[in-house]
Amino acid sequence: MDMDNLRRTSRPTLMLDRRKVLSNIREMANKAGRAGVHFRPHFKTHQSAEIGDWFRTRGIEKITVSSLAMANYFAEHGWDDITVAFPANRLETHLINDLSGRIKLNLLVDHNDTIKYLDERLQHPVALWIKIDVGYGRAGIPWDQPAAVLDTARRIALSSKFNFKGLLTHAGHSYHAASAEEVLSIHRETKRRMIGLRNALEADGFQAEISVGDTPTASLADDFEGIDEIRPGNFVFYDLDQCRIGSCTPEQVAVALACPVVSKYPRRGDILIYGGSVHFSKEFITTADGGRCYGQLVTREEHGWGKPVEGAELYSLSQEHGKLRVTPELFDKIEIGEVLYFLPVHSCLTGNLHRCYVTLEGEPVYRFNSMP
Amino acid sequence: MDMDNLRRTSRPTLMLDRRKVLSNIREMANKAGRAGVHFRPHFKTHQSAEIGDWFRTRGIEKITVSSLAMANYFAEHGWDDITVAFPANRLETHLINDLSGRIKLNLLVDHNDTIKYLDERLQHPVALWIKIDVGYGRAGIPWDQPAAVLDTARRIALSSKFNFKGLLTHAGHSYHAASAEEVLSIHRETKRRMIGLRNALEADGFQAEISVGDTPTASLADDFEGIDEIRPGNFVFYDLDQCRIGSCTPEQVAVALACPVVSKYPRRGDILIYGGSVHFSKEFITTADGGRCYGQLVTREEHGWGKPVEGAELYSLSQEHGKLRVTPELFDKIEIGEVLYFLPVHSCLTGNLHRCYVTLEGEPVYRFNSMP
Repeated sequence: MDMDNLRRTSRPTLMLDRRKVLSNIREMANKAGRAGVHFRPHFKTHQSAEIGDWFRTRGIEKITVSSLAMANYFAEHGWDDITVAFPANRLETHLINDLSGRIKLNLLVDHNDTIKYLDERLQHPVALWIKIDVGYGRAGIPWDQPAAVLDTARRIALSSKFNFKGLLTHAGHSYHAASAEEVLSIHRETKRRMIGLRNALEADGFQAEISVGDTPTASLADDFEGIDEIRPGNFVFYDLDQCRIGSCTPEQVAVALACPVVSKYPRRGDILIYGGSVHFSKEFITTADGGRCYGQLVTREEHGWGKPVEGAELYSLSQEHGKLRVTPELFDKIEIGEVLYFLPVHSCLTGNLHRCYVTLEGEPVYRFNSMP
Repeated sequence: MDMDNLRRTSRPTLMLDRRKVLSNIREMANKAGRAGVHFRPHFKTHQSAEIGDWFRTRGIEKITVSSLAMANYFAEHGWDDITVAFPANRLETHLINDLSGRIKLNLLVDHNDTIKYLDERLQHPVALWIKIDVGYGRAGIPWDQPAAVLDTARRIALSSKFNFKGLLTHAGHSYHAASAEEVLSIHRETKRRMIGLRNALEADGFQAEISVGDTPTASLADDFEGIDEIRPGNFVFYDLDQCRIGSCTPEQVAVALACPVVSKYPRRGDILIYGGSVHFSKEFITTADGGRCYGQLVTREEHGWGKPVEGAELYSLSQEHGKLRVTPELFDKIEIGEVLYFLPVHSCLTGNLHRCYVTLEGEPVYRFNSMP
């Protein structure tokens, strides 16, 4: 999109740098290849059939999603091996039966009651992973309860409805890490805990794969010894939070929200933008001085956007308004009616608020509308 | 919706208690009637043509919205006097010209450059309010700069494109109030500051109305002497944050998110629900112990929902997962596969994440899809 087209962006628009997306995909696919692990990317970040096709060109054939509705969307776009990385929701058994008749569907379980429930109602075989909690404390059987994991594996093995796949985890505590070193430490612990559990299962005669998946460890680690599959998702776009952790550089962030400047307030040194919590989401980063950052101003370049502008952060958002505080020099340069670009804090949530991305060439790239 | 229908809620669903909505509308309309002020409700909270019709039955004919796109949606549903309560965005002049040819369009300005820009490009007359900042610090000319306000009024008067309406403010700092008394104090200050500015304008020969609009002061105050118009929006549903401020009781909250229970973790005492930040939003309330509350569990009743369950709050959300910590007694009672109801922290943002509401009778009530 040339400068004239950029100026036509009259309301908050989620811009997508296709070149950066392709580079992020290529780097992660290459890393998986070097490490000898299967690459089953999580599509919950982009949720776009078109971006899914960009993965296909890198040889990706198996994907991860976060809901059955999203699985159905990608199944309709030709994906036939999908893991729903969310504990199986028994109330959606009708959707499971519908999908598993058409594609290879992989589900997660972490409770024996759910296994019993599904066993009595499934119409087609599904592959089952046991979800393990390696320390994040969200979902899964705790890693330090090997007897419970073994018991669950045995129950799965009793039914012809299930193909037991192995052990799956999401080390989501890596998102709260303060440094790359902390992420790598979480990765080492995750591997150790998962391999320990697999050894316990193997001693009992079970064959089990290990699947892990989070962008910080997948971006920062190189050693995937003992791991069979990785499922990162956020890396396709990255975001400010991943920059903070150290998973990426700002140059790798592939989406930016384009927002019109609507007013200026000299006394406060504030720029008012059209762009609020319904465009960015309310996710924030706590800044060094204890404030909040909801988005980071970046420079405008001939083609797309450039580097972060030091000290120019969105410090407050309401439904449609965003407040940007800048230096007096920058305040004078910014004009009402121009369009500013911001890196989002959490690209998964920002993406979820938009019907489509707009590439730098001005083309729309549509998303699955996951709104219930 | 009977109990069987409730059980069919297989994924996160935003339930709407029509009776409570109608009661909230009636109470606010009655209060405006008693106070002798015009009632121009803000529709950004519900964003639904059908709920708009419920306002019509109370004699409401003029409304407020937060974007031109939303104004267009309601114009298509028969509303012909609409205020866009957001500083006029010059990049959307084409939409302003389109709308102002069909309806009575009222816009906000707080910068002389924008007045000049619009004056040169508008094809039909619009009504202009000067946006005043009474202390919130988001948008508007600061209330303590009467010379600037007067200068802006004069510039508006110079053009035949504009009908000068008066002074409009949003005392959004009332949302950060810690008590009803603090809200009432903000209301008194707001009135004093706005009336002071009007007096300054009148001394210069201008006739100016005063429009104020925020749910906390509109809910808690009774004295609107000197005010011409109120524009509250959130009151139509209310939410946990309004309960915290004291604007409403939990019984008045008219929306609740119905979420399936997908797993239970005895060691942590946690219930895992299908319901995350893409269903609730990331808005939270800081609890007494410094934790976060993203939603409050309420009891299930024969018809709808009941009271908050003490100490049962959603304390963590990720994209699709919600973590609920409960007492050991309640933990044992809650079953995987049942549907729990939660009051949202901020109903405007929660509503924005849903395509429709579902009434307690099981009927969908569709919303404007404001996704860019």
